[in-house]
Amino acid sequence: MNNIDKPGENCAVFGIYGHKEASKLTYLGLYSLQHRGQEGCGIVSSDGSEVFVHKGRGLVSDVFSSPGIFRHLKGYIAIGHNRYSTTGSNLPSNVQPFVVECRDGPLAISHNGNFVNTNFLRKLLVKEGSIFQTSTDSELLVHIIARSKEENLVLKLKECLAKIKGAYSIVMLVKDKLIAVRDPNGFRPLCIGKKRNCYIITSESCALDLLGAEYQRDVKPGELIVIDKNGLSSHQIFQPEKLTFCIFEFIYFSRPDSKIFGEYVDKTRRKLGKNLALEKPANADIVISVPDSSNTAALGYSHKSGIKFELGLIRNHYIGRTFIQPSQPLRDFNVKVKFNAVGGVIKNRRIVVVEDSIVRGTTLKMLARLIKNAGAKEIHIRVSSPPIRYPCYYGMDFPTEEELIASSLSVEEIRKFLNVDSLGYLSIQGLLDSVPKNDAGFCNACFSGDYPVPIEERLLKNQYEIFNHIHLSDKVR
Amino acid sequence: MNNIDKPGENCAVFGIYGHKEASKLTYLGLYSLQHRGQEGCGIVSSDGSEVFVHKGRGLVSDVFSSPGIFRHLKGYIAIGHNRYSTTGSNLPSNVQPFVVECRDGPLAISHNGNFVNTNFLRKLLVKEGSIFQTSTDSELLVHIIARSKEENLVLKLKECLAKIKGAYSIVMLVKDKLIAVRDPNGFRPLCIGKKRNCYIITSESCALDLLGAEYQRDVKPGELIVIDKNGLSSHQIFQPEKLTFCIFEFIYFSRPDSKIFGEYVDKTRRKLGKNLALEKPANADIVISVPDSSNTAALGYSHKSGIKFELGLIRNHYIGRTFIQPSQPLRDFNVKVKFNAVGGVIKNRRIVVVEDSIVRGTTLKMLARLIKNAGAKEIHIRVSSPPIRYPCYYGMDFPTEEELIASSLSVEEIRKFLNVDSLGYLSIQGLLDSVPKNDAGFCNACFSGDYPVPIEERLLKNQYEIFNHIHLSDKVR
Amino acid sequence: MNNIDKPGENCAVFGIYGHKEASKLTYLGLYSLQHRGQEGCGIVSSDGSEVFVHKGRGLVSDVFSSPGIFRHLKGYIAIGHNRYSTTGSNLPSNVQPFVVECRDGPLAISHNGNFVNTNFLRKLLVKEGSIFQTSTDSELLVHIIARSKEENLVLKLKECLAKIKGAYSIVMLVKDKLIAVRDPNGFRPLCIGKKRNCYIITSESCALDLLGAEYQRDVKPGELIVIDKNGLSSHQIFQPEKLTFCIFEFIYFSRPDSKIFGEYVDKTRRKLGKNLALEKPANADIVISVPDSSNTAALGYSHKSGIKFELGLIRNHYIGRTFIQPSQPLRDFNVKVKFNAVGGVIKNRRIVVVEDSIVRGTTLKMLARLIKNAGAKEIHIRVSSPPIRYPCYYGMDFPTEEELIASSLSVEEIRKFLNVDSLGYLSIQGLLDSVPKNDAGFCNACFSGDYPVPIEERLLKNQYEIFNHIHLSDKVR
Amino acid sequence: MNNIDKPGENCAVFGIYGHKEASKLTYLGLYSLQHRGQEGCGIVSSDGSEVFVHKGRGLVSDVFSSPGIFRHLKGYIAIGHNRYSTTGSNLPSNVQPFVVECRDGPLAISHNGNFVNTNFLRKLLVKEGSIFQTSTDSELLVHIIARSKEENLVLKLKECLAKIKGAYSIVMLVKDKLIAVRDPNGFRPLCIGKKRNCYIITSESCALDLLGAEYQRDVKPGELIVIDKNGLSSHQIFQPEKLTFCIFEFIYFSRPDSKIFGEYVDKTRRKLGKNLALEKPANADIVISVPDSSNTAALGYSHKSGIKFELGLIRNHYIGRTFIQPSQPLRDFNVKVKFNAVGGVIKNRRIVVVEDSIVRGTTLKMLARLIKNAGAKEIHIRVSSPPIRYPCYYGMDFPTEEELIASSLSVEEIRKFLNVDSLGYLSIQGLLDSVPKNDAGFCNACFSGDYPVPIEERLLKNQYEIFNHIHLSDKVR
Repeated sequence: MNNIDKPGENCAVFGIYGHKEASKLTYLGLYSLQHRGQEGCGIVSSDGSEVFVHKGRGLVSDVFSSPGIFRHLKGYIAIGHNRYSTTGSNLPSNVQPFVVECRDGPLAISHNGNFVNTNFLRKLLVKEGSIFQTSTDSELLVHIIARSKEENLVLKLKECLAKIKGAYSIVMLVKDKLIAVRDPNGFRPLCIGKKRNCYIITSESCALDLLGAEYQRDVKPGELIVIDKNGLSSHQIFQPEKLTFCIFEFIYFSRPDSKIFGEYVDKTRRKLGKNLALEKPANADIVISVPDSSNTAALGYSHKSGIKFELGLIRNHYIGRTFIQPSQPLRDFNVKVKFNAVGGVIKNRRIVVVEDSIVRGTTLKMLARLIKNAGAKEIHIRVSSPPIRYPCYYGMDFPTEEELIASSLSVEEIRKFLNVDSLGYLSIQGLLDSVPKNDAGFCNACFSGDYPVPIEERLLKNQYEIFNHIHLSDKVR
Repeated sequence: MNNIDKPGENCAVFGIYGHKEASKLTYLGLYSLQHRGQEGCGIVSSDGSEVFVHKGRGLVSDVFSSPGIFRHLKGYIAIGHNRYSTTGSNLPSNVQPFVVECRDGPLAISHNGNFVNTNFLRKLLVKEGSIFQTSTDSELLVHIIARSKEENLVLKLKECLAKIKGAYSIVMLVKDKLIAVRDPNGFRPLCIGKKRNCYIITSESCALDLLGAEYQRDVKPGELIVIDKNGLSSHQIFQPEKLTFCIFEFIYFSRPDSKIFGEYVDKTRRKLGKNLALEKPANADIVISVPDSSNTAALGYSHKSGIKFELGLIRNHYIGRTFIQPSQPLRDFNVKVKFNAVGGVIKNRRIVVVEDSIVRGTTLKMLARLIKNAGAKEIHIRVSSPPIRYPCYYGMDFPTEEELIASSLSVEEIRKFLNVDSLGYLSIQGLLDSVPKNDAGFCNACFSGDYPVPIEERLLKNQYEIFNHIHLSDKVR
Repeated sequence: MNNIDKPGENCAVFGIYGHKEASKLTYLGLYSLQHRGQEGCGIVSSDGSEVFVHKGRGLVSDVFSSPGIFRHLKGYIAIGHNRYSTTGSNLPSNVQPFVVECRDGPLAISHNGNFVNTNFLRKLLVKEGSIFQTSTDSELLVHIIARSKEENLVLKLKECLAKIKGAYSIVMLVKDKLIAVRDPNGFRPLCIGKKRNCYIITSESCALDLLGAEYQRDVKPGELIVIDKNGLSSHQIFQPEKLTFCIFEFIYFSRPDSKIFGEYVDKTRRKLGKNLALEKPANADIVISVPDSSNTAALGYSHKSGIKFELGLIRNHYIGRTFIQPSQPLRDFNVKVKFNAVGGVIKNRRIVVVEDSIVRGTTLKMLARLIKNAGAKEIHIRVSSPPIRYPCYYGMDFPTEEELIASSLSVEEIRKFLNVDSLGYLSIQGLLDSVPKNDAGFCNACFSGDYPVPIEERLLKNQYEIFNHIHLSDKVR
Repeated sequence: MNNIDKPGENCAVFGIYGHKEASKLTYLGLYSLQHRGQEGCGIVSSDGSEVFVHKGRGLVSDVFSSPGIFRHLKGYIAIGHNRYSTTGSNLPSNVQPFVVECRDGPLAISHNGNFVNTNFLRKLLVKEGSIFQTSTDSELLVHIIARSKEENLVLKLKECLAKIKGAYSIVMLVKDKLIAVRDPNGFRPLCIGKKRNCYIITSESCALDLLGAEYQRDVKPGELIVIDKNGLSSHQIFQPEKLTFCIFEFIYFSRPDSKIFGEYVDKTRRKLGKNLALEKPANADIVISVPDSSNTAALGYSHKSGIKFELGLIRNHYIGRTFIQPSQPLRDFNVKVKFNAVGGVIKNRRIVVVEDSIVRGTTLKMLARLIKNAGAKEIHIRVSSPPIRYPCYYGMDFPTEEELIASSLSVEEIRKFLNVDSLGYLSIQGLLDSVPKNDAGFCNACFSGDYPVPIEERLLKNQYEIFNHIHLSDKVR
């Protein structure tokens, strides 16, 4: 119920080394990264010899609800994870960090991203006698690490990750080390912060702000970072390939106050709005946003177009897990329960509605009707990203291709479906013009179908062979 | 943890007559009124002869979490309540609606407001042999009703309410009737809506929008409404006195999409911002809001002043009930856990921060520091209401007078305390110019100390004699 | 699920004065009295000026599950209650102790028993302007106390209790006193213990054993005890009428290790078995008991008859609140889930099965079949009480008269229904010969229909007028 | 809190093939086997192609508390497990059945017993690249199975189990088969039942009685059973070695109504009492039992000695998970909270107290004092098993050798410690004379130190290397 018709978020990872309250700071870091995943979370800490684990399903503030948990999570190193299920369904055992004991001792891993050759690898491993207790990429990775004959963890990780294709921003903990690694394409963000002598690794920089830590730099694509008693050491285990940062992080996922891929999200998102105003102007009285994710783009649209920005939709933030409907459902209930139109703003106005993206379009259709019924004279939808036509295999949770409205309908057909006066999407070029140039490249496969890393066939067909026939109850006490 | 340094909200009431899913619609109504109280909620329904009750502590979506509850809440009449504790602490037994059996049979009551002569009345009743099981105004009221010798409920209510001083917007249910009544001053909002043959009474009109019902009119001050099989009948039981609507409903409490006291909240709130811009201009680059409650006023300030509106603060909506701090607390933790500054927006800018009200000032001081640390060149606080100098006895939950920063410090002293470059409050006149004129009057006692209804002495001294020495555990299963 | 086809138990009361951990000792007392009621429990304590409350539904060990609760329950006086619903259904608000504020300040009450003229009294009170929030006898009593014009609590209680007919063993707490009172018939047990300077009042003496306290004496029928800083004072407020102790306390309710009505339960229960053996001998190989309540009587039967005592039935003590059945229910599931026959004991034997009482007979029929199927050659049921033909209005929870098997069937017809080889009940005379003689009398209304205190008509017809139409949800958070 | 000073119980396994409500019958089976483990339980079912899992911590009736769970647990095959932690601490991930996906597809396993060469095997596997997510024997076993190159499951299991030393009664589920296997020594019981066309495997036969199934025979030591669409096939994968059934199953673990190792427990337990009476007579007035586990032996002692059997101790069955003590603990609280002496029985009597075993002796010391204080003239402890001097490595949870009172004290010293008039243990010979002769042998290592299967050194030193440094929180949501 939390997000209506948006791509599923894609997990957060966090790690800290060198703080006597490492687990509490990890908890705060996870809390500030909650927008990236709300299904489950966990923290693993180490005091240099013993490893401590607590994880569960639900929000950070629910899973870590008592001070006693932090007395258990001893030590000066910790990693954490917020989960949004991408592969592997909503199972308790899939909540990360994933913890095992292997040749190198205890090992915990937090992963953001998605591997794209998992079935091939899983089948290979199973054939060689591995057993799988979950359907997560993390378990797969650990199996490969555990089998490596290389002499140290850096070499092992290099050997293993060479076998893996796809997107990953990973944070790992062994007894006395914090390790971070990012795939050579750099799909998912990952950055390094510092607070006095203490190192922090985080998906987004907003976690650093909460902790009063300084942003240092991004973990580089293909780079492996080891932090231990000797400080931070960097290993460029892969030469960065053609960089393909996930452009959707700028469009929707990341918090506007975060700096990712070297740039403030807020700044880029405002540019999306401005370029949208240039590309797809509208003859209207006011600009409104679909709160909260489209606020910044709407403001950019307003500033560039000169059309006044107004707060035309109120969002109810008290939504719970489930919601009980009347037997005779109220019209547009799913949208109304989340949004209401402000009559005094909307009435008799020609309105530009800025939305960051359209996935299925069903929610936006209801929202347009809500605005219409509040008295809008004209509705002009402006979308601060191009039409989404292709699924993502690198960590975003999209519906299947058939369900993506833009994969089968033209823009004009979508306009008719939404029943609005006009509809304009930002072009791919306009999108690319909005994001930072430096030497970064971006993945825009969901718009263009141009996948920078090839996907194994089974994944394309949405088939998982291993752990496909085991159905865990979701009511575990 | 939910609201930082704001007056406590003041409860919501809701009632519906003539719908076969009366309790489910009440649940939705309460959900849309959740902002008025988050401590507890309840619904009482009637099928004309039997009365059904469910209530509990927590949010609407938590207390009403299973469909089975609605199978219990049978009938075509229902009333509901969202509680924020004003008088009576956070006790399970204080959750409303309050239900009793008396001479007239089952009787349930939902109350928004605060009586100001309760101790006098309670002592009188106790002397006559009444027993009190809670510290709520509702129990007091029911005791008085039960003792009335008048022949029908309208006359009884008239007799009883004549004894009561203070603020009340009340919804009552007896077996076959829905009753609503508003005090002669009209302190708290209460309006009537209609959905086909079904009548709805609600604190704010936003509940009508969610239900697809039409706003009809406000319940008039001093008016008692009875809805039963003969339809709606109106009884002006008291001549409206000098009307003194709570002006804080416009400043902060009500949702911007609601219409109260005959006007859209959003429209008034924007005017507050405009008048603030006229009265207290600022030489600045951008206007930002303390989200979400000050958004509309900030927008008004921006439009009138011509200074660009920006989103400079991000608010985290995932806050839970409790929050565990590190032992060495992070500086400004309480604010940081809720807000973060957007670096790209704030940096090197002269900033107007619009806030709707200042109570203790401690949070705003931290927020100003947060903005400063994000690189702001200058900070100019503008408050869309006058300095709060006096407590409220009509249903708002303010700290004691000593804790109200403006009761002891001048504006310049507050500015120094906040450590900002300038501070400007809206004047009382500017406030009154912003609210609708018609023939309404407003209570501004919290700013002026001019209390329209006299307060009994014990209440002034914050003494409750009855039920003052009984301490219920808050961990009841 | 807890008790199969037995009369409902009838609540426990407990009070303590003069111990710095009064609430913890009350908790232990309630725990040892758990057999008298498992639906809910509560404790109210006082430190002499403030009163503290914690109560909830469930077992003592569940409701009082965290040490924090006892930090809340401060003070040197405390009372407690274990609830089994007699009148008033299973509602959270009916969990005792019942706490109110009235003219005399805070007042808490724990009640065991049942009033038999409640409707008359409730209607009278409601007519005079009282309101009822529960359907308990305790609320009724407090209303009457609160209205008394007498000058002190002893006189008030005397005045009030004079109006009340029925069974009551009551423990009350006011700020600085512990009060105990027992009806003039002495239906329910209540005794006084002492542990150094600390006084204890308890339904059964087994609580004293756990606490290491000394049994002093019973509270006398018609006696009111006040314990305060001046020690214990006794007030014989009513001349004891014809004493009618509940004989079922000896047959089934009380724990065998308790001393009630001046005699060990175990001793009386063994006599029941002996007299049963004399009255209803059997030609059999072994005697077995329906565990655990019939163990002692079975042993008595064995000793007197010379037939060997064996453990032929095993009882499973892990039964939870609910139990999920297969769709095609297993034959005799309800009994099998609780009992199993020991094949090696039963096989080819002629068996005397001693049971303490038969209510509906349905369970015993299944049990007999279970024993038969385990290979018993003959089954001879012997019941250590007479046929139950009449309902109890003094605090036992029996089914209605229609459901009592012995109210419509003869002993021979019951034998046929049970499908056993012989059936023998103890005679009323045999019963009376088994209980202590001293100067006590016993109520045997459930066997004889001879009610020592007349029952008001409405109660006979099972009609409750007040609070009969209000249905509280049982899922309160 | 559940068992005072007894060896920890040792898990129950259950499996069923060929019933359309397989999971519900498994639930009932586990319920009847609850006495063998109360920490956690689980069920895995299969419909022939899909596998369904539900498990959790707590009692069967708590973990399986809603009918929805059984709608999830589809299929006609199911296995279940009740856990008492032997190796591997009380972790949610250690709750069985253990489920993985491996080369053979989904595989679930329930295990009763203990392997004695696990560290050797775990280290070997880890060296070869295996990862461990738990500290259970089951995970170890599955790793070995997964690595086997044998062509079918029977051959694989034979190959794997050949590497394993120790005690095991295992039930396994693969998609279309139910498998059961018992170690060649036959340490733990395991039997086969039938209900029409449906096969059942269970630790004890009492589960068959509840389900209305017929006992067929025991699974033979060294036998592997496969049940699938072709019916039951038996594979004697190991020649039974010297049989060493766990004699403690007769003394204490199993339910008296169960048939294990070909004999009713009840019958053997009565013989223990009889032989004890012959070996260690006492000059006393009555025989009492420490309920409930010693009841049958006490009865045997009474019958053989001619001393009257009485119920001298009452056991409280309402004990919850935790129990809160007063700050100044009551003397002998731990025993009193569970037992009370029946004054009328004990007073002025010379008493034989029959107890099935003594581990640390601390509880029995308190119990003896309790009996003394109730007025016993003499106390004669008689123990229906020999002194326990050595730890068990085959699945019983004993304290370490140092804590076993009989490992360092002589019988006379123990008597002094207990402060009783006499103390008599059954001799090892008397024990062996009591158990069935057929061709069975029994393990009596805990009495004699004669371990039939050698224990690896690390285990003797109580060192676990793998998963020894990972500490999971026990508060997982």
